[in-house]
Amino acid sequence: MINRIKKLWRLLDAETDGMLITSPENVRYLCGFSGTEGTILLTRTEGFFLTDGRYTIQAQQQVKQLTIITFREKVKELGRLIKKLHVKTLGFEARHVTVAELHDLEKETRLVTLKPCTDVLDRLRMVKDPAEITLLRKAARIAAQSLQEVMPLIRPGIREIDVACELGYRMKKNGGEGPAFQLIVASGYRAALPHGVASLKKIAAGDVVVIDYGTVYRGYASDETCTVFVGKPTARQKKIYSIVLEAHNRAIAALRPGKTLKMIDAAARGYIEQQGFKKYFNHGTGHGIGLAVHEPPRVSYLAEGAAVAGMVVTIEPGIYIPGWGGVRIEDTVVVRDRGCEIITPNDKRCTCVA
Amino acid sequence: MINRIKKLWRLLDAETDGMLITSPENVRYLCGFSGTEGTILLTRTEGFFLTDGRYTIQAQQQVKQLTIITFREKVKELGRLIKKLHVKTLGFEARHVTVAELHDLEKETRLVTLKPCTDVLDRLRMVKDPAEITLLRKAARIAAQSLQEVMPLIRPGIREIDVACELGYRMKKNGGEGPAFQLIVASGYRAALPHGVASLKKIAAGDVVVIDYGTVYRGYASDETCTVFVGKPTARQKKIYSIVLEAHNRAIAALRPGKTLKMIDAAARGYIEQQGFKKYFNHGTGHGIGLAVHEPPRVSYLAEGAAVAGMVVTIEPGIYIPGWGGVRIEDTVVVRDRGCEIITPNDKRCTCVA
Repeated sequence: MINRIKKLWRLLDAETDGMLITSPENVRYLCGFSGTEGTILLTRTEGFFLTDGRYTIQAQQQVKQLTIITFREKVKELGRLIKKLHVKTLGFEARHVTVAELHDLEKETRLVTLKPCTDVLDRLRMVKDPAEITLLRKAARIAAQSLQEVMPLIRPGIREIDVACELGYRMKKNGGEGPAFQLIVASGYRAALPHGVASLKKIAAGDVVVIDYGTVYRGYASDETCTVFVGKPTARQKKIYSIVLEAHNRAIAALRPGKTLKMIDAAARGYIEQQGFKKYFNHGTGHGIGLAVHEPPRVSYLAEGAAVAGMVVTIEPGIYIPGWGGVRIEDTVVVRDRGCEIITPNDKRCTCVA
Repeated sequence: MINRIKKLWRLLDAETDGMLITSPENVRYLCGFSGTEGTILLTRTEGFFLTDGRYTIQAQQQVKQLTIITFREKVKELGRLIKKLHVKTLGFEARHVTVAELHDLEKETRLVTLKPCTDVLDRLRMVKDPAEITLLRKAARIAAQSLQEVMPLIRPGIREIDVACELGYRMKKNGGEGPAFQLIVASGYRAALPHGVASLKKIAAGDVVVIDYGTVYRGYASDETCTVFVGKPTARQKKIYSIVLEAHNRAIAALRPGKTLKMIDAAARGYIEQQGFKKYFNHGTGHGIGLAVHEPPRVSYLAEGAAVAGMVVTIEPGIYIPGWGGVRIEDTVVVRDRGCEIITPNDKRCTCVA
């Protein structure tokens, strides 16, 4: 983790002599702390970790290379420390610090220049190191095994919420820390909701069921979507599934270092458009994943930049037809030197249950 | 919900002719939308709800009194709309909007004064209406019933994580939407961690077990802590339990409209100090709860203001002794005209299991 702090300093300009890290994922990334109240204050030679009394013991266990300080009033303590360290230009995370927090901090640091930094930690975190990829792979495996265990339950008559509930339970039993997000089990007409969090609806014969699920392992999230058919799919269901699968496969085949992320989106989106379903694919093709389920880079028509080896992103095109239902197929992939590697293990060929 | 929007306008000054609401809880509070991407833009005569393509159908189902707009680029769409509506002074949630978001918004609204608002929605949400209290009570009951179902599992040899996992599962089965926070099951020496999220540690005979848990029902959270002993408690365990219980009871007895929240904290804290455990109670006595698990008001030595009928807060003093363990006892209570009403149903008398 000391290496990550060193890399961070290399990305900051010479003028910046202090850096404040407040977002939980960035705090965890830099020092390993997994609680909800942690702040890191760095200078080029020293490092401090601030928390409140609830987390002092946990911080002593997890945070090895920073000086731990327990505060009663965070902003006052920060102000005192920043003054004592003679920080002149303090970088802060502009995408995390709120307007009100900045205002409070300004009152305690009148002689300090507070400098918004938006991308430095994003840039660091976008490219994963091997230890991170191991954790992401482990999370994906725990989740996939759990889905396999739950698959026999997907039968006409069971409620979506019961499937989600069993899946969440299995993921925990199998070693996950908890769901990475509210699990989506969207059946029949509800499959047209790209974010159809499991409801009380009963799954029926002939339904398509979109299952978008993930767990967390040592802070790292997994994200995979499997779409299954309850009984033999109709010709239309089969056709739409095969279009989404082809779009998904094309994006994955296109993904390698140097390709722009916009091109990866276009590989999936272009095929769906070509098949006449343009208006039914209304979200980006994917997103980065790591300590956060959604983190840079985006893989969308608005994406900037190109793929780099070590990036981990989802590829998840879908077709959603109001009133009819929908299909989404999602894998999490690691960009490798000559292509990419899928780390979500479930087979994406058309699957029927019941 | 239209009433809530009307109340909001009464709290804003005359100059403000537009209001932007972006925090998920405030969005849900004002329009009922439960997804993760929703923005409300209000003028004194019109109201708009902005979301992305994933949530269009859900918004049509949930958001009845605002005009629904699906955006491709949120900030650009907001800029266009704000211009079209001739907004001159736009209030925004300074405790939610980040420095980077404000910067992006400023670029799209050059002629508009962006005015930080910090407390208006807090002030509205701090005092719950009867419909909200019904949901909070329901959440608390689902959780408490689930804990009772799980209680027989708390035996020497079971892992903390298994208790948490079963409890999470039961709360969902019983109608909760999911855990309100990472469930705490902290046994033996781990009970000294005020936020001891369930670990792989096995519960042992003689352990104290702190269980801090909650679920969510239609967006509203519950929060309760039960501390139980595995086997007959030692004299010291009994003594510390009785001190925390007395502190908890004193705070609840003191809580009524007009009393300052600092006084409520002092009622619990003063007793713990008097018994010689001052340094082992290192967090506030409680916090508001509603659509967020932690929301204003605080009940702490730093709290401002007084209790008002309709406020819903937790009362949760604790004693945490490193190496030995800890005890916390927490109820959620509604401030009533002449005192307060406990809505977390579990009995707080000393309980032994196994």
